[in-house]
Amino acid sequence: MKLNLDCIPCFQRQALQAVRFISDDEKLQERVLREVTKKLLESNWDLTPPELAHEVHSIVRRITNKKDPYKNVKRESNDSVLKLYPELKEKVKESRDPLRTAVRLAIAGNIIDFAVPQKFNLEETIREVLKKRFVIDDYRKLQKKLKDAETLLFFVDNAGEIGLDKLLVETFLETKKLKQIDFVVKGGPIINDATLEDAVYMGLDDLPNSEFLTISNGEAGTGPARSSQTVKKWIEEHDLVVSKGQGNYEGLSEHNGLFFMLMVKCPIIASDLGVEVGDIILEYKQ
Amino acid sequence: MKLNLDCIPCFQRQALQAVRFISDDEKLQERVLREVTKKLLESNWDLTPPELAHEVHSIVRRITNKKDPYKNVKRESNDSVLKLYPELKEKVKESRDPLRTAVRLAIAGNIIDFAVPQKFNLEETIREVLKKRFVIDDYRKLQKKLKDAETLLFFVDNAGEIGLDKLLVETFLETKKLKQIDFVVKGGPIINDATLEDAVYMGLDDLPNSEFLTISNGEAGTGPARSSQTVKKWIEEHDLVVSKGQGNYEGLSEHNGLFFMLMVKCPIIASDLGVEVGDIILEYKQ
Repeated sequence: MKLNLDCIPCFQRQALQAVRFISDDEKLQERVLREVTKKLLESNWDLTPPELAHEVHSIVRRITNKKDPYKNVKRESNDSVLKLYPELKEKVKESRDPLRTAVRLAIAGNIIDFAVPQKFNLEETIREVLKKRFVIDDYRKLQKKLKDAETLLFFVDNAGEIGLDKLLVETFLETKKLKQIDFVVKGGPIINDATLEDAVYMGLDDLPNSEFLTISNGEAGTGPARSSQTVKKWIEEHDLVVSKGQGNYEGLSEHNGLFFMLMVKCPIIASDLGVEVGDIILEYKQ
Repeated sequence: MKLNLDCIPCFQRQALQAVRFISDDEKLQERVLREVTKKLLESNWDLTPPELAHEVHSIVRRITNKKDPYKNVKRESNDSVLKLYPELKEKVKESRDPLRTAVRLAIAGNIIDFAVPQKFNLEETIREVLKKRFVIDDYRKLQKKLKDAETLLFFVDNAGEIGLDKLLVETFLETKKLKQIDFVVKGGPIINDATLEDAVYMGLDDLPNSEFLTISNGEAGTGPARSSQTVKKWIEEHDLVVSKGQGNYEGLSEHNGLFFMLMVKCPIIASDLGVEVGDIILEYKQ
């Protein structure tokens, strides 16, 4: 997706939020905001949003001298999902269609996103998404693909949310034994995107035959880009491929053979897709 | 009120909205956004929000070569209120407490504000505000002041909204004849603030003994600033003084003897006041 002019003030809002997570010092906050604004002004606005996000968050990390400003926020998200997990696991089990319920919960978890301006309430979102109509609904295709699958590639999105992704994969396993489960996490911190540390904290490594791949957070040496040939090959080598969230939806849009699960949270993306903020999507891209 | 760091991206959002009102040319939109961002970066952030708003909107006017980018939007707001007016007038008349209902409608009209990020729906807001609890409610004081008043000074806020201010003043006149009604409008365009042209379009000049004063939109020669001694004197010379909206609430906060009527729309102001976005206030400042 091309950068929209609205992304420019939105990045500044993100940077301000990030520095406020780690410091109450208004002088430091102003310094970060000024440096980020300066960088944006000097940048070519033909970059993609993830490329510019990398620039912005590098500045936050450099000036605050914190490797990951979202560390505590991610931990809180992870813990809040761990707390809800037993109850949600029970909800899936007791449901008339456990797979469908698990898909809904995994999409509801996608509300945990610090890239967008809205505040969120996870429990409220879960209640809503359990009843919400999908604007795109390829559920039958998912059931069918799962039935024949032996290998799974799963692009996760955010910390916290990955606990509900785990629940979804556990529900996959109730239907179908999988020989190989590869989770794709970020190779380094960017906003509240899940890294290997988050995945291990949430127990994704306890799933049978599970392994981890990393994609780039924008920094060198953190993994291939989503649009790369390497990632294309990963997708082709797996029977079932799931992509969570807006960032993956944008970044993987040139590849084929994926199930996209997301909640639309950015008004620009909503307008691009012709849907509304808050809409939920389960789309298979042939 | 002091500028908050959140105001910086918010001003860019405003500028972008303003240029989009008058042109679909993305090159022009980018040029405006870049110039505004540059100006903000060069500015001292100890200015007040209205001072910086003036700088920002001057740039929009200059680059687009439009004296008032909000002209059409203001006309639409005015027309939509004119359309609702007969029905609302009836609602006030039939109400158990017409003054109270008219105050509520005038506050509901304050939702028509293009300075803030939220979209609005006037009719929905009217339905809500007719039932909403005031977080500050000096209604008894308003009734008492009106009973003894012979002169009224009324600081209006936005285009469209002024139609509901007119309805409020008409309701004042059902209770009490007034010898002098002075409306304070902006002396030049800034965002969707009402100017003399809007006030005349909405028929505020038809009210008996009504006259108009102007305050500054930031440009030289448009009137005194809200914080000035001139405005202080105006306030002291009138028996009943009403101030609508957030901008007036901030700008007139150092004066005494005013009724503030507003809906809180900016999260920074909400946090400053210890209230929530969407809250309604009728406050008398002694």
